[in-house]
Amino acid sequence: MADAERKLNNGKSRIDFQTDPSKYRHWKLKVDGEVATLLMDVDEKGTLFEGYELKLNSYDLGVDIELADAIDRLRFEHPQVKVVLLRSGKPRVFCAGANIRMLAGATHAHKVNFCKFTNETRNGIEDASEASGFSTICVINGTAAGGGYELALAADHIMLIDDGSSSVSLPELPLLAVLPGTGGLTRVTDKRKVRRDHADVFCTTEEGIKGKRAVDWRLVDEVVPGSKLEDTVIKRAQEFAAKSKRPRAEKGIALTPLERKRTDNVVEYLTVSVEIARAARLATITVRGPETPPPASAEAMVAEGANFWPLRLARELDDAILDIRANEYDIAAIVFKSTGDGAQVVAYDAFLDANKDHWLAREVRGLWKRTLKRVDLTSRSLVALIEPGSCFAGTLAELVFATDRSYMLIGQLPGDNKPPAAIALDAANFGAYPMSNGLSRLASRFLADPADLDKAKAAIGQSLDAEAAEALGLVTFALDDIDWEDEIRVFLEERASFSPDGLTGLEANLRFGGPETMESKIFARLTAWQNWIFQRPNAVGEEGALRRYGTGQKPVFDTRRV
Amino acid sequence: MADAERKLNNGKSRIDFQTDPSKYRHWKLKVDGEVATLLMDVDEKGTLFEGYELKLNSYDLGVDIELADAIDRLRFEHPQVKVVLLRSGKPRVFCAGANIRMLAGATHAHKVNFCKFTNETRNGIEDASEASGFSTICVINGTAAGGGYELALAADHIMLIDDGSSSVSLPELPLLAVLPGTGGLTRVTDKRKVRRDHADVFCTTEEGIKGKRAVDWRLVDEVVPGSKLEDTVIKRAQEFAAKSKRPRAEKGIALTPLERKRTDNVVEYLTVSVEIARAARLATITVRGPETPPPASAEAMVAEGANFWPLRLARELDDAILDIRANEYDIAAIVFKSTGDGAQVVAYDAFLDANKDHWLAREVRGLWKRTLKRVDLTSRSLVALIEPGSCFAGTLAELVFATDRSYMLIGQLPGDNKPPAAIALDAANFGAYPMSNGLSRLASRFLADPADLDKAKAAIGQSLDAEAAEALGLVTFALDDIDWEDEIRVFLEERASFSPDGLTGLEANLRFGGPETMESKIFARLTAWQNWIFQRPNAVGEEGALRRYGTGQKPVFDTRRV
Repeated sequence: MADAERKLNNGKSRIDFQTDPSKYRHWKLKVDGEVATLLMDVDEKGTLFEGYELKLNSYDLGVDIELADAIDRLRFEHPQVKVVLLRSGKPRVFCAGANIRMLAGATHAHKVNFCKFTNETRNGIEDASEASGFSTICVINGTAAGGGYELALAADHIMLIDDGSSSVSLPELPLLAVLPGTGGLTRVTDKRKVRRDHADVFCTTEEGIKGKRAVDWRLVDEVVPGSKLEDTVIKRAQEFAAKSKRPRAEKGIALTPLERKRTDNVVEYLTVSVEIARAARLATITVRGPETPPPASAEAMVAEGANFWPLRLARELDDAILDIRANEYDIAAIVFKSTGDGAQVVAYDAFLDANKDHWLAREVRGLWKRTLKRVDLTSRSLVALIEPGSCFAGTLAELVFATDRSYMLIGQLPGDNKPPAAIALDAANFGAYPMSNGLSRLASRFLADPADLDKAKAAIGQSLDAEAAEALGLVTFALDDIDWEDEIRVFLEERASFSPDGLTGLEANLRFGGPETMESKIFARLTAWQNWIFQRPNAVGEEGALRRYGTGQKPVFDTRRV
Repeated sequence: MADAERKLNNGKSRIDFQTDPSKYRHWKLKVDGEVATLLMDVDEKGTLFEGYELKLNSYDLGVDIELADAIDRLRFEHPQVKVVLLRSGKPRVFCAGANIRMLAGATHAHKVNFCKFTNETRNGIEDASEASGFSTICVINGTAAGGGYELALAADHIMLIDDGSSSVSLPELPLLAVLPGTGGLTRVTDKRKVRRDHADVFCTTEEGIKGKRAVDWRLVDEVVPGSKLEDTVIKRAQEFAAKSKRPRAEKGIALTPLERKRTDNVVEYLTVSVEIARAARLATITVRGPETPPPASAEAMVAEGANFWPLRLARELDDAILDIRANEYDIAAIVFKSTGDGAQVVAYDAFLDANKDHWLAREVRGLWKRTLKRVDLTSRSLVALIEPGSCFAGTLAELVFATDRSYMLIGQLPGDNKPPAAIALDAANFGAYPMSNGLSRLASRFLADPADLDKAKAAIGQSLDAEAAEALGLVTFALDDIDWEDEIRVFLEERASFSPDGLTGLEANLRFGGPETMESKIFARLTAWQNWIFQRPNAVGEEGALRRYGTGQKPVFDTRRV
């Protein structure tokens, strides 16, 4: 049944987003000086769920978790790499895309969250090129179909072998009655800038496009005869390496395994705690400020490695968000809290600013940028509670600005001597962490009047109490201790009483005012249409194309155009 | 049942988009010099379908067809009007929005197309302000809820009576588990630029916002005590009239009723024919070029009135598109053909250019702009067949560029002596008719390389045969007579075999490459999410909120967040 929960193949009860190269079953990461090779060689039996096989280099979320991990390791562990070759380890097939039997049997919620994660991973590949300075060259040695071609689309350069049969295709619509849901349509029109009528032909041609036409229509950058392929790959790798602006660095740092302790309703990381209140359908994420001042130098930061506070916190927060997304569908709202010393958070921001040309500082900032985007795109109501003893300053204040609503306590709570809540802004709040619409969270917040943004900027360095923060428009409500508990309880109860789908749609609209980018178009226009289609009987009904694929039975369509 | 077809209340079998003020049941249009009043006073019994009543100035598609007609008449029949007051004829209520019982009982296809038309009408109100030069002032004398407030959002200025109870609200999410689907969320964030957390509070507060907070949060432009309301309305009307750039014109033209003859599968207008091939699921729209040269002067154009060829053709084409959208759900593709003399089409374009400061020429261009946008947004596959004897030149060539795919015949067909097909470009193809993304269709087409746009511009004035048009990238395929019939037959059969939903999603993505505007965001981000929610059991299931509204039973939600 389309909506039955599937069993995980490893016997566990939760999807785990943590892995490392020693555990990879589907990818091989080889680093050779400036050039790395990411070889996709999917283990058919190594599925995330029971009930299907990953033939022809098709993938499921488990395969993509390894890919995302590999890209992050290239950022942090291999800073000398300037070019990544994305290749297949199987003959005559590059990648057949998302596994169809997996999709046909997945719940709607899993399908949607699977696509979201794969989209984030592909955006991450492009971000690595733009922000981290290593390019990706995709070498297609056979069929790149559907999600296989969408993966190629994330690369900076696509090479297709010219052997009379190898092709690229987006056959989702003709074969499965769904859309290429991992950014494919948007990248075809907005990145590759394929002419819209050519795109129409391409996306409705099951067998795809090969050879010269694939170049003429801008679907790939070059076709290369098999006999010249390896030489050309080396040449291209050298060319892209020469253009790389990645700063020189001899040695990376190790992304050591996260330390997590899980009990039924609590996950304890070193700098993050997650508490699940199932009856109330709430997850509370508490982030902890640094316990020590920033390191004395960039070298000392490198020596701290994965223990460097902002890096550790970003990794733990990212894992916590992904865990809730994939494993806790019943959670209606995520409540962000913080504890610690805001001045220390600001000191770390200042340290990162002072070292902004150092490769590791840049990567840490980049990870925060991507993690905060992940928060923005999380389809749960997001709430910040800014309480005495909290440290929502600088980078951590971004969590407040990422929420749908924030509440800040005026003064102290009776019988509690923690210092009154304060917010502090620093330079990081004004451009270091753009949202997917290209604007900072504060610029998105103050679209109506740029003067409000200037006023916020002028408040850099001040410790803003609740009333000051409210006056500057940084929080939604400042409440005194008499109203605090009741107001928040009523709000959270109300939130949990609303339609979960309605909230997802509402938040997806209200969070992204202002301009759109290719990235935001993928998560809005394309994703929303795909989600719609993932609900339609023509795709997922008993007689729908996704369910009937491979059964020998043709799908039966409701012919009404909507 | 949510998917059963409802009966029309007037006993007819088709929804008719043609009306005139003498037939209005829901609106009163009063013109007094420079100021017009559009009074909404909905006749509860005057429903489009059977089975509900339009209480509290709630509306269905029938109400909106009258509104759209009124706006068009203000453009053409009342060119002296500079300000429109949008008001309610009922005490203590402005408008309760789309009728909930109508929505609860409507098919998914009707819901989606209803929202599309109401969106187009509201965009038309804004376009009237920007392009035609008459502003709309909305005077809210009571409750403006849901679609009622969304209607107000289309105005240039919103006045709310300050009586302690009158409010604006978007209660769709808390009450019905759906989104404000007529642009409300996008206009709140992108037009009114309401801060996102305020928008969150507003859209989850059933009773809405009133008084000073409504102004502080930018939801309305002013609140006015009842005792001062009429004086203030007059004052504002004068202020907006003084700012109007509408050119002076004494006298409008009459939008006389369209002449239509309908048989089962054919609709004959004077300049448009529609032929329905039900088995093939095709509608062929043939537009006819002008039979006479353009008028000798602007005065002669005014004398021609609704018979002026470009005006007549735009009105007929618009009606044909709307008729297919609302009444022919089973049609998979619309095929555009043309007959006539391309040189005459270009001559009309030149005439409109020469008179571009004349109010009527400007309105005719504006109607074409909106009609072509309506084509872009029509969720059927769009195809142009460019055959001997056709006249796809200038403005009519925009239909080719609006299609998903175009085929052009090389030379003549055996036994047919009509002149070989040719395309001609003129200035109208380079900016007169922007798409909802803000670009011309050719600029959207040539996103990859602006040089291609320059090449097309350099071809202005040439008669481009099939091979020349293909070389310039203006058509998808140029075919000779040996391939012509088979290729097109196979393509159209294939198109009809695909999932209708999949095609809707595919085309909604491929048609709008490049930048986004508030308008395109409404039709993409917001509409797509709303369509998704309109499929979800939490809204439309037996226990969903939309179905249970008003029954006294609470909705039951699947609590999983997706």
